[in-house]
Amino acid sequence: MALESGVVTAPAAVLGKMLKQARGAWTQWQQEAFSKRDAALAKMAARLEQAADELESVNAEEVQAARAAGLPPALLNRLALPAAAVGRLAQGLRALIALPDPLAQGRSLRVLPNGIRLEVVPVPLGVMALIFESRPGVTADAAGLALKSGNAVLLRGGREALKTNRLLARLLRDGLSEAGLPPDLVQLVDSADRAYVDALLHLDGLDLLIPRGGAGLIQRVKREATVPVIETGVGNCHVYVDQGANLDMALAIVRDAKVGNPAVCNAAETVLVHRAVAAEFLPRLEEVLGRHGVTLHAEPNALAYLSEAQAAEETAFESEYLSLDLAVRVVDDLEMAVDHIRQYGTGHSEAIVTNDYAAGLAFQRTVDAAVVYWNASTRFTDGGQFGFGTEVGISTQKLHARGPMGLAALTTDKTLAFGTGQTRDFPPTLD
Amino acid sequence: MALESGVVTAPAAVLGKMLKQARGAWTQWQQEAFSKRDAALAKMAARLEQAADELESVNAEEVQAARAAGLPPALLNRLALPAAAVGRLAQGLRALIALPDPLAQGRSLRVLPNGIRLEVVPVPLGVMALIFESRPGVTADAAGLALKSGNAVLLRGGREALKTNRLLARLLRDGLSEAGLPPDLVQLVDSADRAYVDALLHLDGLDLLIPRGGAGLIQRVKREATVPVIETGVGNCHVYVDQGANLDMALAIVRDAKVGNPAVCNAAETVLVHRAVAAEFLPRLEEVLGRHGVTLHAEPNALAYLSEAQAAEETAFESEYLSLDLAVRVVDDLEMAVDHIRQYGTGHSEAIVTNDYAAGLAFQRTVDAAVVYWNASTRFTDGGQFGFGTEVGISTQKLHARGPMGLAALTTDKTLAFGTGQTRDFPPTLD
Repeated sequence: MALESGVVTAPAAVLGKMLKQARGAWTQWQQEAFSKRDAALAKMAARLEQAADELESVNAEEVQAARAAGLPPALLNRLALPAAAVGRLAQGLRALIALPDPLAQGRSLRVLPNGIRLEVVPVPLGVMALIFESRPGVTADAAGLALKSGNAVLLRGGREALKTNRLLARLLRDGLSEAGLPPDLVQLVDSADRAYVDALLHLDGLDLLIPRGGAGLIQRVKREATVPVIETGVGNCHVYVDQGANLDMALAIVRDAKVGNPAVCNAAETVLVHRAVAAEFLPRLEEVLGRHGVTLHAEPNALAYLSEAQAAEETAFESEYLSLDLAVRVVDDLEMAVDHIRQYGTGHSEAIVTNDYAAGLAFQRTVDAAVVYWNASTRFTDGGQFGFGTEVGISTQKLHARGPMGLAALTTDKTLAFGTGQTRDFPPTLD
Repeated sequence: MALESGVVTAPAAVLGKMLKQARGAWTQWQQEAFSKRDAALAKMAARLEQAADELESVNAEEVQAARAAGLPPALLNRLALPAAAVGRLAQGLRALIALPDPLAQGRSLRVLPNGIRLEVVPVPLGVMALIFESRPGVTADAAGLALKSGNAVLLRGGREALKTNRLLARLLRDGLSEAGLPPDLVQLVDSADRAYVDALLHLDGLDLLIPRGGAGLIQRVKREATVPVIETGVGNCHVYVDQGANLDMALAIVRDAKVGNPAVCNAAETVLVHRAVAAEFLPRLEEVLGRHGVTLHAEPNALAYLSEAQAAEETAFESEYLSLDLAVRVVDDLEMAVDHIRQYGTGHSEAIVTNDYAAGLAFQRTVDAAVVYWNASTRFTDGGQFGFGTEVGISTQKLHARGPMGLAALTTDKTLAFGTGQTRDFPPTLD
């Protein structure tokens, strides 16, 4: 489709030009050793604060248009950027200033037997791009993360928030200029045309693409992208209540993991219950979660212990509900729980509740996920909670970064080799 | 094409079954904490040694068939596996036993303010696959690397070496069985059909694919693969002879980088010479390299100082010659050298020869490559030379691993979280 239409070649050309400008700006910055990062963050924050009212009013128009177009309330919420939220974005940029510089600390230093000294140092990836959906605040967050780690960034936000993003990008670029950095380090893909998403997936020369959004976007990127990608944020997380569990603790953990914030990727979507405790646990679970309006989707063995639950639909265990819905299954033993997670899990966060030492160890060893909890809620999988100060996203892939990503995930290694004329196969002097 | 033919679905089905078997074997091994790795390496080595003569004779038939089919001598050389080479493969497997266990050393250990203890530990990636070309020895090398790092591996070798690889795989699998491990941890894609390469690129569930081969294979994998990939070994490496260079040192380094082993990825393909030293350096370069049969491909400014060189063809600077050919260009200054490398380099290894402090630092800062040498040959970019004891390959990408890869490149992180009932948004006890 993209190949047949003459019109659709335009996005690739536009993005190619943006990438060239970003690379040019980045190369200039590289020659200055990525200086002025913190100064620019401060200027960017100040620009946002100064324009908070203007942002609020531009955004209010977009929210109104989206409401008129019939967008559901949850999406309208995510789209909204009141002045107070702008203040939080500015604070987020300033918080980056205080974080350790991800480019400052060398990774290793060795001297080879031949006298060559090898310094392995972190360097920025180069030019990255982010595809995100409704929340316009991501524009500022992502620009700040990219800048702090020495990267240029291309941003593609949601269509509904285009005007808000346009103003945000202008303010951030003004902040860069004011700090003496080239504004093309931050560029917005200024179009609602979906063809730009396609073109980003194939933007040759891009160093990294991070898709932030629902499972549909992530799957599409995984299938189609020819640029380096880090997949983030698809979480079909489980809590397994073992026969050795303290059931009060298990109830508190499941409640937290399901109800605390159902819309996020580290929320639990399925509870697996050992058959030995199902009769005692499940009625109590129904009672506790019922108070919070949670709908249980139970397979027959679980349904037997529940009075208000729905029969689990065929896709219940595959669903990342992101809502007050929870799938429930009774399992024969720990192995069946682990098998279930192997089949349905997305490698994000998994939890066991048990006081049985062997069961906890076995679960942690055999469940293949970024974070495996023993007697704690899955909701802690988060850059802030993990003490990284910020979060680039939560990687659900195994290469480069896994789990909550700090700023280091936006860097790579460079080895600097210092010699005095060393050669490998010939003498170091002429014959 | 692959979708239209009923026949072509077979490779995907065969590989899907192999992957399932590999995953099953790996899961069983995971439950035993990836034990018996070193014992299995010893058994595998012994099996190879016992069958050295049989391997030599099976291989000799394939070499003869390839010679009859008209394969060039360089390829015949790579295809050959005499008994002495089998001995070296066995030694390679035994050498892995002595290396530090890539799964043994935890990466970090922290206690969060809420009391949750986070252990970040290395874990194997899972099931990996390797596509390689003529050298059958890669079968044993790759199986050893995969095994030492706790991974199962699917191997797809060159068509000419299928019988040799088949025997090698059988011996390696026998070694695994003898050590009490499931033989399906190592499986050979036992077909000369190229459709299996396509199918590997799209084998959903594979944790890592490493292509080892020429630029054509790497480019194809990069363009088409939907599984996680590490690109290895495409090196268009440069030596820049600065005006501040010791020219004797520069000659020795260029000779080593070009002539030492022209067929490998860390060999130099282009020399860039500062105009201020071109008149003195280039005639000497021609004289020294001429003794080794090197053909120079020079652009006009360089050609003026050379008597036997060819005029550089249009693709001279893009070529990874992998032969006794060297492109030559005179540059106005360091910046032009860096720009040239930015345009033509593959991010592998780049070198500057200079005694000018500012020039060396600027080159190392602004050249974006895995390894940037100052007064040393590019030929040191190698796992063995870097002290890793072995080499998985040389990554030319920025994500996950860059430059020579040790065994750690075949692992990922898992975070084990130990709690005592912690919750994030609700109290840890029921109301």
